[in-house]
Amino acid sequence: MKNLFTLIMAGGAGTRFWPRSKAARPKQYLNIFGNESLLQSTIRRFSMFTETEKIFIVSGKDQAKVLEEQTTMLPKKNLIYEPVGKNTLPCIGLAAMFAELENPDGVMVVSPSDHLIENDELFRDTVLAAVKIAVEQNGIVTIGITPAYPATGYGYVKTAQEITGNEKIRQFKVDKFVEKPSEAIARGYIEQGGFYWNSGLFVFKIQVFLDAVKQFAPDLYADLRKIQAELGKPTFEQTLDTVYRSVNGISVDYGIMEHANNIYLVEGNFVWNDLGSWESVYLNSEKDASGNAVSGEAVVVDTHNSYVFAEKGVVALVGLEDVIVVQDGDTLLVCKRSKAEEIKKVVDQLKAGGKTHYL
Amino acid sequence: MKNLFTLIMAGGAGTRFWPRSKAARPKQYLNIFGNESLLQSTIRRFSMFTETEKIFIVSGKDQAKVLEEQTTMLPKKNLIYEPVGKNTLPCIGLAAMFAELENPDGVMVVSPSDHLIENDELFRDTVLAAVKIAVEQNGIVTIGITPAYPATGYGYVKTAQEITGNEKIRQFKVDKFVEKPSEAIARGYIEQGGFYWNSGLFVFKIQVFLDAVKQFAPDLYADLRKIQAELGKPTFEQTLDTVYRSVNGISVDYGIMEHANNIYLVEGNFVWNDLGSWESVYLNSEKDASGNAVSGEAVVVDTHNSYVFAEKGVVALVGLEDVIVVQDGDTLLVCKRSKAEEIKKVVDQLKAGGKTHYL
Repeated sequence: MKNLFTLIMAGGAGTRFWPRSKAARPKQYLNIFGNESLLQSTIRRFSMFTETEKIFIVSGKDQAKVLEEQTTMLPKKNLIYEPVGKNTLPCIGLAAMFAELENPDGVMVVSPSDHLIENDELFRDTVLAAVKIAVEQNGIVTIGITPAYPATGYGYVKTAQEITGNEKIRQFKVDKFVEKPSEAIARGYIEQGGFYWNSGLFVFKIQVFLDAVKQFAPDLYADLRKIQAELGKPTFEQTLDTVYRSVNGISVDYGIMEHANNIYLVEGNFVWNDLGSWESVYLNSEKDASGNAVSGEAVVVDTHNSYVFAEKGVVALVGLEDVIVVQDGDTLLVCKRSKAEEIKKVVDQLKAGGKTHYL
Repeated sequence: MKNLFTLIMAGGAGTRFWPRSKAARPKQYLNIFGNESLLQSTIRRFSMFTETEKIFIVSGKDQAKVLEEQTTMLPKKNLIYEPVGKNTLPCIGLAAMFAELENPDGVMVVSPSDHLIENDELFRDTVLAAVKIAVEQNGIVTIGITPAYPATGYGYVKTAQEITGNEKIRQFKVDKFVEKPSEAIARGYIEQGGFYWNSGLFVFKIQVFLDAVKQFAPDLYADLRKIQAELGKPTFEQTLDTVYRSVNGISVDYGIMEHANNIYLVEGNFVWNDLGSWESVYLNSEKDASGNAVSGEAVVVDTHNSYVFAEKGVVALVGLEDVIVVQDGDTLLVCKRSKAEEIKKVVDQLKAGGKTHYL
């Protein structure tokens, strides 16, 4: 499609993948599976059916080095740097301003940069079904993942009436977006049916999206127009910095999706995981007969259902069950799989002790 | 004492302390507790009551570099290098040849280099009691450790009649030396009484020992005399190499102690451990309130009864029980405490895979 833009949001930081993710190299830049990073996998997946010249990435200046290293397949002008992170709505709005100048009739797909997605063809078909709805209905379309279990770590989207028109991929009007639920409530969602995991993947016509911003976040809309007016001028950087720092940081879910009426959902049945922890990486990794997932040089003796990543050197595991071992540079994590959420305590303690060189 | 020589046997290799012990740096050269190596602690303990000029060390040429680095407090001529390891009897015999030339009326204490010993004053008093027996009885005296539990990892010495003469430290004629027992047999030893752990510490007059070698290992005796005759000559190294390579490798226990009648035992009540595994290092280390022994930089969250050694960088442990984590250079071990014996399988696998640079 000639007028299909992609925005990959790559500004995220995060500590749940310590010690591999560090301040200067968050999760999206890690080659967690295979040889390419999660960001590079995301770009490759879109480049199979869109033009790489129309793939934009928004990130922070502090990630410029690793971002440029990993995106040599894209025009450098497509790398957009926020002066400061402001959540998803300003981020998407900023990219929409860039894309609108190139093609005011453009359609945009918004995607996270750090999720696991398999079944590339089904992914493509699902995105293109969402594009079709977005164009035909003048809607903002989210891709909802068919829930595999009552997850408490994801937000949900509740659907309303189904829309006919696609034989393979179901599509609905959206009733509402709901926050991460308790397990009891999540179980209710699954029994009740009609609930999908919120994947963070959106599709819309740029004009439809900007109209929604104008209606539901008029101050932000005005600020984005100010920034757009400077694009290509020597004063652009300064204006971006001044104006963008003053906008409200708000998510697209809160800022638009919960208010607008023209929200649609297309059902995603490809393999999807937001990779929220080392535990989810283990669960999504290929394992040997003992249930071990090993990356790098390791000697594994009498050990089961464990995850090992060795960046260099050799790691030996003896007599262990259900552990995560991650060696990266001069940092090492050994963690019981069921306690992966507590890694943030390690990061907090290192921070409190002034050991930021390990972060 | 003017004529008291010490022989510290430091030729041992071994894999049970991988990844800290490597081919070029066996256990005796490691600073497992505090800032000095086990060898240096052994030297310091003897130097508190003997002259350092009379402390000999026997080791292998492959360990020359680290041995010289760690023994700057000794005359360099006291470092004796075996051309090849030949077990304890030839090793002690070789050192006895050196010492005899300095003082044929000398008394020699033989000590391992890699054991943990505490209570330095009681150790000194015990050694001096053994020296007294050795001199008065023309005996070969072993120091036996009062067993704390029915250990299956140590050899035992069975005593015969008690000898009076020392109010504080009991001393006996020896009945026999016995191999590492099963647990049932070890329990029997403890119930029966009169059994001691074989510490590997021996004391004897040099002439008494050489007489025993002459009687029970006459070929070795002749070879040792050939070597001694060359001492100080330019041909010494060549003779040592040729002759020593041909001698039978045999332990002093098998070769002499099990045959001779003039064997005595002095009771050792100082803290003693042969540090046969990381598990024994953990048990002999100072622990915090959670039962963790930590050496180096570590962050410990929700973890109990574990041992951590970090040579450099930082190690984080989360949600673990009863593990040993040892980081050294580009090698890392994570091992369940109860499986510490299986570390040799790791070494075997690395060897089989040609990864000797990790060994």
